[in-house]
Amino acid sequence: MKELKGACIIGQSGGPTAVINASVLGAVQAALAAPQITNVYGAAHGIKGVLNQQLYDMSQEDPSELELLMFTPASALGTCRYKMKDPDVDPTDYEKLLETFRKFNVRYFFYNGGNDSMDTCNKISKFMLKNGYECRVMGIPKTIDNDLYGTDHCPGFASAAKYIATSCMEVKHDACCYDTGMVTIVEVMGRHAGWLTASAALANFAGAGPDLIYLPEVDFDMDSFLNDVERVYNATGKCFVVVSEGIHDKDGKFISEAKTNSNDGFGHAQLGGLANKLAEVVRGRVSAKVRAIEPSLLQRCATHLASTTDATEAYLAGKTAVNAAVNGDTDKMVAFERNCILGNYVCSTKLLPLESVANFERKVPREWINAAGNGVEKAFIDYALPLIQGETGMKVENALPRFARLKKVLARPTC
Amino acid sequence: MKELKGACIIGQSGGPTAVINASVLGAVQAALAAPQITNVYGAAHGIKGVLNQQLYDMSQEDPSELELLMFTPASALGTCRYKMKDPDVDPTDYEKLLETFRKFNVRYFFYNGGNDSMDTCNKISKFMLKNGYECRVMGIPKTIDNDLYGTDHCPGFASAAKYIATSCMEVKHDACCYDTGMVTIVEVMGRHAGWLTASAALANFAGAGPDLIYLPEVDFDMDSFLNDVERVYNATGKCFVVVSEGIHDKDGKFISEAKTNSNDGFGHAQLGGLANKLAEVVRGRVSAKVRAIEPSLLQRCATHLASTTDATEAYLAGKTAVNAAVNGDTDKMVAFERNCILGNYVCSTKLLPLESVANFERKVPREWINAAGNGVEKAFIDYALPLIQGETGMKVENALPRFARLKKVLARPTC
Repeated sequence: MKELKGACIIGQSGGPTAVINASVLGAVQAALAAPQITNVYGAAHGIKGVLNQQLYDMSQEDPSELELLMFTPASALGTCRYKMKDPDVDPTDYEKLLETFRKFNVRYFFYNGGNDSMDTCNKISKFMLKNGYECRVMGIPKTIDNDLYGTDHCPGFASAAKYIATSCMEVKHDACCYDTGMVTIVEVMGRHAGWLTASAALANFAGAGPDLIYLPEVDFDMDSFLNDVERVYNATGKCFVVVSEGIHDKDGKFISEAKTNSNDGFGHAQLGGLANKLAEVVRGRVSAKVRAIEPSLLQRCATHLASTTDATEAYLAGKTAVNAAVNGDTDKMVAFERNCILGNYVCSTKLLPLESVANFERKVPREWINAAGNGVEKAFIDYALPLIQGETGMKVENALPRFARLKKVLARPTC
Repeated sequence: MKELKGACIIGQSGGPTAVINASVLGAVQAALAAPQITNVYGAAHGIKGVLNQQLYDMSQEDPSELELLMFTPASALGTCRYKMKDPDVDPTDYEKLLETFRKFNVRYFFYNGGNDSMDTCNKISKFMLKNGYECRVMGIPKTIDNDLYGTDHCPGFASAAKYIATSCMEVKHDACCYDTGMVTIVEVMGRHAGWLTASAALANFAGAGPDLIYLPEVDFDMDSFLNDVERVYNATGKCFVVVSEGIHDKDGKFISEAKTNSNDGFGHAQLGGLANKLAEVVRGRVSAKVRAIEPSLLQRCATHLASTTDATEAYLAGKTAVNAAVNGDTDKMVAFERNCILGNYVCSTKLLPLESVANFERKVPREWINAAGNGVEKAFIDYALPLIQGETGMKVENALPRFARLKKVLARPTC
């Protein structure tokens, strides 16, 4: 395999997670150590920074400050939601990327994102190949949705799952300590896949969780839902429901009040307000106090509850991507394989062709959801529990988080 | 001082906190150890359990399980919002209490609550005295609102403050990592006092907090608010606002959409929906994505982020109440005094007459709020920072909380 010498760009895309920066740390450290990589650049706001030649020189960062990225939430390099056009329809953006690559002698591109980002990676890789520009492109997975195809799980999911499970346990205690009737509805992120919503069942495993859980993998029926709530409420005087923002009826229509005048850069409708909507419906049926809770951003940025297993694997994903690329791999995404060694969970990495991953969605298997479609089976607990292990290693100063503070020194073209 | 021998009741009232059970633990352990106390009862759902003779025999609990109360959220004995009538108007409830006291030979009553509970304590104490029933009554403070009169701070506040500060730091990172305009509005609990909302400023102290903070201590003016948001947004492309649910205009009218058909047992309107309302208003002025976040119950039950200083002081408050009562004190609330020893924060307890506490509210001093009324001064940081110290001691099993599971064995009358 021919050695390829040149600069690398590392970028982040889409919604952040509690451990996405651990992947950047892994990639940056591996790149700084690789003799084949001449310069290590961080893209300001993902692909937009590459388009606009806004690149940070990562070698200017203090190594000990960089290490804090292991437990710093959100995308430290900045993120974006920008869908590039199909290069066969409009190659403008791709030509701009090529210009940046040439100006900075970029031979390695690492993109840390979800489904859409893997699609972006794949298109960039194909375009560079077609234009005879030698370049290795690797995807580093991340998503709290856990819906990337071909990998056992995705970095970012487990920390969000731990947050949801822990918060559900705490809310269960709070919502059940009054002597009056109470229905509590918690809305969890996840547009098409219910992995994160299902993680509320970990709270049941630990002794205090929701009575009912609804995932987008099963068509939602309002009458069945109301019957479920009424049955639990009549039996216990309480009812605790966890519901995915992405639940939809049998025709695929979101139950959530889709805000039609607002969507993200990929044309997905922005969801939200579902818990409030369901609460209104329940109030018409049950004469209890009904409370809607939407943890919103809190669930994806709670590094203070990060799983160290998750952070470690996120780091590993970043490092593996760089090491594989300098060794000749391209057009691949790092994926996780689950091994069971002497009864213990062990995670290993593998590489998947980008085009086998891009734009597919992995959903919770139907057999992991109960027959009634209002709860989760033990198979899910067995799957998720090993992933959330390990207390956060977040650095604390004065009892508050000490997150990384990067200098973000802009780089100048080298060619 | 004459020794008073008999049973004690410990009850919890009002909204729970992350550490309210630490006070119950302190009180129960002290009561079980006190030779003057013959039986230790926990009231099921506060004063309602006393009225209905639903008392748990706390000696039946496993001591090691009881210890888990130190870091178990919500009210482990159950709580209520029940305002007893003035005994001069309708003594029915008080006569029922007296009946329970006689049946169980109760000579000590400890009530763990906020303003309204201290009023309840005071009335019970006066009624028993008037009816010649010898009994010692003590209040044990708790409230995330931190608004009890005469005490430096209240158990429960600091853990909620730590949750708000930590979450604000995390949300700040998340909300600022996109390259697009973003206004984020977080709504914090606190009907009349802004202590908890002000704690968002701790996030600024730690390097990543809100741009604007509005407390109920200052009349809220919508035009000034919109000007503030626009100014920050135009300068930075982002704006992060934290606002108390209890903000009101100069005529005292809540800005929140008060749900008029629903109120708690004390006749307070149930607030909520403020962040969404403000978000709507901001959308009319600034062409950015505007996100409303209401942490709701999460902020008062997050034992996973409890301050150990807070939990320890809550425990101390419970224990002090019992020890003071067996030594002859009655009609008092345990309060905290702040001492500065060699530059270090040291908390000590004192006793205050219940009637000096009941129904007063302690607010954030105006001079701790900036002149414009949209931020918090350093004096507040100096006040709050020592209170949030110490990582939670919450027990963890399988990476999830292991909260106390009480048997709750109902007691039978002894007389």
